[in-house]
Amino acid sequence: MISNDNKFLFKKFKEILPEFSDEDIYSFLEICTFKRLKNKAVIIEPNQKSSLVFFILKGVIRGYLTNTDGVEKSVFLRPASTIIGAPDAFLDNKISKYTFEVIGDTELLVFEFSDFEKLTLKSTNILKFLLSSYKEMIQTLLYRLESMIDKTPEQRYKDLLDKRPELFETAYHKDIASYLGITPVSLSRIISRRIEKKYLNIL
Amino acid sequence: MISNDNKFLFKKFKEILPEFSDEDIYSFLEICTFKRLKNKAVIIEPNQKSSLVFFILKGVIRGYLTNTDGVEKSVFLRPASTIIGAPDAFLDNKISKYTFEVIGDTELLVFEFSDFEKLTLKSTNILKFLLSSYKEMIQTLLYRLESMIDKTPEQRYKDLLDKRPELFETAYHKDIASYLGITPVSLSRIISRRIEKKYLNIL
Repeated sequence: MISNDNKFLFKKFKEILPEFSDEDIYSFLEICTFKRLKNKAVIIEPNQKSSLVFFILKGVIRGYLTNTDGVEKSVFLRPASTIIGAPDAFLDNKISKYTFEVIGDTELLVFEFSDFEKLTLKSTNILKFLLSSYKEMIQTLLYRLESMIDKTPEQRYKDLLDKRPELFETAYHKDIASYLGITPVSLSRIISRRIEKKYLNIL
Repeated sequence: MISNDNKFLFKKFKEILPEFSDEDIYSFLEICTFKRLKNKAVIIEPNQKSSLVFFILKGVIRGYLTNTDGVEKSVFLRPASTIIGAPDAFLDNKISKYTFEVIGDTELLVFEFSDFEKLTLKSTNILKFLLSSYKEMIQTLLYRLESMIDKTPEQRYKDLLDKRPELFETAYHKDIASYLGITPVSLSRIISRRIEKKYLNIL
């Protein structure tokens, strides 16, 4: 629970969600806990029913599966101003396979999905925010799926660099590689190849 | 527009969506057009802004991209009782890359997404149906993405066979292969290998 006079969060919300009324922001902050976390802090452990959802104010959240060979496979890399939780748990009340951790120094608002759903019944703006968050998730997942089905690793790298340059400033090389569905060595090769090409063009 | 006395559709809806009131069903049917289509009929052409959404009563819908090499890549294979449209177009008002066609003899209800969104403002049941459709899409896309990131083609085949056996009765071999991200030849090999294994176990 956050006291209503927390001006910092209120101001931040006004910037990120200008369509929210003051009342919307207060009722949203009421169900939230504010957290400042250090790099690599785990926010959802695997094999749990976690219906926690995170609104990222600063930093990046990574969600990954650990497969039967013990290899981590990054499925989510979410930047600031987006929301994320373990979808299998908060959408479907199942035990989640995912681990979620923060990358870099991170500021988050944490809330229970069921508390948030209750707010959508009271405020049209909050309902619209939920609907647009679902749409954004569908578009992001579809884009990821399309690129896994039809793009080469180099195209996927280039697309990510264009779309989400901030990830390259905060996320680790190995996490980006895993997110692109390739090994860290392949990612290094792609980057060297691109630097070479750039260099040759300049000459 | 469908006349309110269309008993066949009303009954079908009652079965598929028992949570809908009679009024909900009537107002939904008001915005729908009922279509019976033959195998391979195209329902969304590519490079259009189509905000049409399809509620599948019978049959399967396939959505595919045609890549720069002219190869069709199946991204969606949707069975009866689900909804589908070109997500880039109906969610984001963009020109869609996708072609959608029916597989087998198909019965569909077709509606404009914007008309449907208006209904969600009037009926909580219809709003809940939209929210649960979004959830279902997120879960389906996430499942597809996870399997592309972490599963072998044979595991993906087995999973699809377990989860959606009806697709194997209606969809073409080449479409299933493309949906699994493999060539038709690889799919044939996987199937032969599995038949062999089964045969050896029986002996």
